[in-house]
Amino acid sequence: MKSFREELWFETSTRRAYLNITERVQQAVRRSGVQEGLVLVNAMHITASVYINDDEPGLLKDYDEFLERVAPQAARYRHNETGEDNGDAHVKRQLMGREVVVAITGGRLDFGPWEQIFYREFVGRRRKRVLVKVIGE
Amino acid sequence: MKSFREELWFETSTRRAYLNITERVQQAVRRSGVQEGLVLVNAMHITASVYINDDEPGLLKDYDEFLERVAPQAARYRHNETGEDNGDAHVKRQLMGREVVVAITGGRLDFGPWEQIFYREFVGRRRKRVLVKVIGE
Amino acid sequence: MKSFREELWFETSTRRAYLNITERVQQAVRRSGVQEGLVLVNAMHITASVYINDDEPGLLKDYDEFLERVAPQAARYRHNETGEDNGDAHVKRQLMGREVVVAITGGRLDFGPWEQIFYREFVGRRRKRVLVKVIGE
Repeated sequence: MKSFREELWFETSTRRAYLNITERVQQAVRRSGVQEGLVLVNAMHITASVYINDDEPGLLKDYDEFLERVAPQAARYRHNETGEDNGDAHVKRQLMGREVVVAITGGRLDFGPWEQIFYREFVGRRRKRVLVKVIGE
Repeated sequence: MKSFREELWFETSTRRAYLNITERVQQAVRRSGVQEGLVLVNAMHITASVYINDDEPGLLKDYDEFLERVAPQAARYRHNETGEDNGDAHVKRQLMGREVVVAITGGRLDFGPWEQIFYREFVGRRRKRVLVKVIGE
Repeated sequence: MKSFREELWFETSTRRAYLNITERVQQAVRRSGVQEGLVLVNAMHITASVYINDDEPGLLKDYDEFLERVAPQAARYRHNETGEDNGDAHVKRQLMGREVVVAITGGRLDFGPWEQIFYREFVGRRRKRVLVKVIGE
């Protein structure tokens, strides 16, 4: 069994951002040399998500609006009484998810036609990272 | 290490549908010959979910009503300005999840007493598929 | 390839509870002897979640309040017509998730600075369990 580990680092210029990281994950899988296996891709921070869906600008705004409607940034959060201002981000990240697990087949991400991996930042403007862990053969 | 891959294809007659796919996944695990390992089961399409919960008809309706309440089909979605009519489905799928990872122990899905794997279709009436990827020994 | 399986059992004294199980999962990983691999941690019951976020008391209350707002315990659920009283718990568990998959690197959970694994009970006061399944080398 082979294993491989790589960190992807990001620093977004805005509080909220979407980054399509599909190609960077595919490159990590290539470097791993794994032909058949699984890759775990997870946010290492607790106010960011990794998820899979379509790369369509309207959809990204729909997600923004949905999340802001159900967990508004300006609402009252007990977590913010600690001096933080990101209570909403911890809720939003849970709804969008921490991680994805993707099959590797023939050395490539085994995806349907529209699947794309996104890093979703809810509290940016600082250096944060995603873990890519590959296991297989 | 062994690996095994299978696609499950579906075409539902209604826009929304639930399919209990536990037995089909169990059969794929059997065919894989893996006794100890993990199985990833994921929707390959971005308006469908794979999730684990109880197979109880009232509960399935509760999920429907919850999802329709927080992300109504008739609400305005920017994604629909592209000519699509499935903006709601992309939100609903994120809430229910894309994938499950299940332990394989002694050649079987290692489940609690009520766990069942569902394929949840949000935009049916076309051929769509689920990926089953097994790794282990 | 090595594999390892352990069940963690809980019985909470309240209907709803949060348990930080990070150290128990780390101990299971240690017992597995796996240095490089993946660990799956999942609720084996369908009204409980396993998720990863910060261990901050205010945040735990924020999650409670959010979940109770979108899926109140006292609302009407068809599932409850079966004699159950936990319709809300099935919805809440889906939003917080069933499982996490964590990378193992150098024999340890490969975590960012604030990541902690929680068992989130939505219908406690009975014996319930979490599955820890490790694969790797």
